[in-house]
Amino acid sequence: MKKKLNIIKIGGNVIDDTAALNQFLADFVKVPHPKILVHGGGKLATDLANKMGISQVLWQGRRITDAGTLKIAVMVYAGWINKNIVASLNAKGEVAIGITGADLSILKAEKRNHPEIDFGFVGDISPASVNTEVMRKLLDTCGTLVFAPITADASGQLLNTNADTIASTLAVSLASTFEVQLNFCFEKPGVLREAEDENSFVSRLNLSLYRQMKSEDRITRGMIPKLDNSFQAIQSGVQGVYIGHFKNLLKMIACDEDAGTCIV
Amino acid sequence: MKKKLNIIKIGGNVIDDTAALNQFLADFVKVPHPKILVHGGGKLATDLANKMGISQVLWQGRRITDAGTLKIAVMVYAGWINKNIVASLNAKGEVAIGITGADLSILKAEKRNHPEIDFGFVGDISPASVNTEVMRKLLDTCGTLVFAPITADASGQLLNTNADTIASTLAVSLASTFEVQLNFCFEKPGVLREAEDENSFVSRLNLSLYRQMKSEDRITRGMIPKLDNSFQAIQSGVQGVYIGHFKNLLKMIACDEDAGTCIV
Repeated sequence: MKKKLNIIKIGGNVIDDTAALNQFLADFVKVPHPKILVHGGGKLATDLANKMGISQVLWQGRRITDAGTLKIAVMVYAGWINKNIVASLNAKGEVAIGITGADLSILKAEKRNHPEIDFGFVGDISPASVNTEVMRKLLDTCGTLVFAPITADASGQLLNTNADTIASTLAVSLASTFEVQLNFCFEKPGVLREAEDENSFVSRLNLSLYRQMKSEDRITRGMIPKLDNSFQAIQSGVQGVYIGHFKNLLKMIACDEDAGTCIV
Repeated sequence: MKKKLNIIKIGGNVIDDTAALNQFLADFVKVPHPKILVHGGGKLATDLANKMGISQVLWQGRRITDAGTLKIAVMVYAGWINKNIVASLNAKGEVAIGITGADLSILKAEKRNHPEIDFGFVGDISPASVNTEVMRKLLDTCGTLVFAPITADASGQLLNTNADTIASTLAVSLASTFEVQLNFCFEKPGVLREAEDENSFVSRLNLSLYRQMKSEDRITRGMIPKLDNSFQAIQSGVQGVYIGHFKNLLKMIACDEDAGTCIV
């Protein structure tokens, strides 16, 4: 029987709220090993860019990563946020290590090659990018990995990589070794039928309901890549995918009925 | 027989010079496993502090680490410098992981408690602070560790810690498991008899010559803690300590006669 591996992604809004982050980390410590926490950025990167006079360029809502923005992303994500999360967890009794895709060449990314636009230092990955043997060894030795959304290409160029994509890519690539549960934690109780009504969350979402809700414009742009990743993960052998409120992490891990939206 | 472990410290001046750093890393790849690279900071931290309007306070030449300076140190050392070194090494065929003392609670530091002055977020460590079992496991799994000079205390507070001290502390704590050689690499050929004459380096330095040179003011202030650490390391079971030019790294590893200053 395969060992269960929990991969948990937390978003920037949790990271920006110290009290919320602390509560989340206290729950995370209770999740059984092995486990991986993938974290995003939060507004610290934007604040730092403003202080340094680096203006951010967006294209269709997506950030262009120029050299200055990359430096900030690496410093904030792999430095400040990653090491603070690691130190907080370890103070709570965890034995966690902070890593990026560049460490041990865990993720071999490629600089995004787009026909129309230069996204700058953005790395694309696929399940084939993951060095699963190294990941298995590291999970075996360390038990708890805290993953910052930075990767590198074969030339050693650091690249900014979407944290949701890292979480789902790791999940898919490790599904042949572990029984993987992928958990996206954010500040909503799940996928909502009505954007403004937090009680309207869908507890089980299948592909046909997802398509219907998309056609009715009930699922907004930011959620679409997360859900596309989620369905792809399920189709690629990931055992379970949950999307829910960070306060319900332990319910998600226990697969409770009202834990959030379970992708089926 | 104990396995040989090389611990190599590089200073900020090497890190600031891209060509020098690249040459150094190309040599470092050739050093046999297991090995640890401990790196310092360089002027990027000062540049960033200036850009962010954070003024640095020095006391007797030692930097006071206030909250803003700590943030910069963590971002620059554990983020930008550490991950760039790791990615460069791995692009050269190495399999390296970047860590700090906070990861896996490798180094349990204490916030410096000084009777006269508050150094701020500075961490003190001793060989007893090192979790040698975790270090052994990590060296076993990863082979090459790249260590940024950041630690954490028991409460999870990140702390700034001197890189020379980290290198020598790791060396002493691991000397019972490994045959440890500690190598301090900088931009001089070794300990100089005449400060201005690079050909005047001492190839073998013992405690009595060190005391004599100190009494003659031939050894300057920055070098004293490095040499104190070096003699303490030798007295505590570290097999060999070299201080020399970063270009001579492979000579140091081979214990060549003219590799630098060998502490005896």
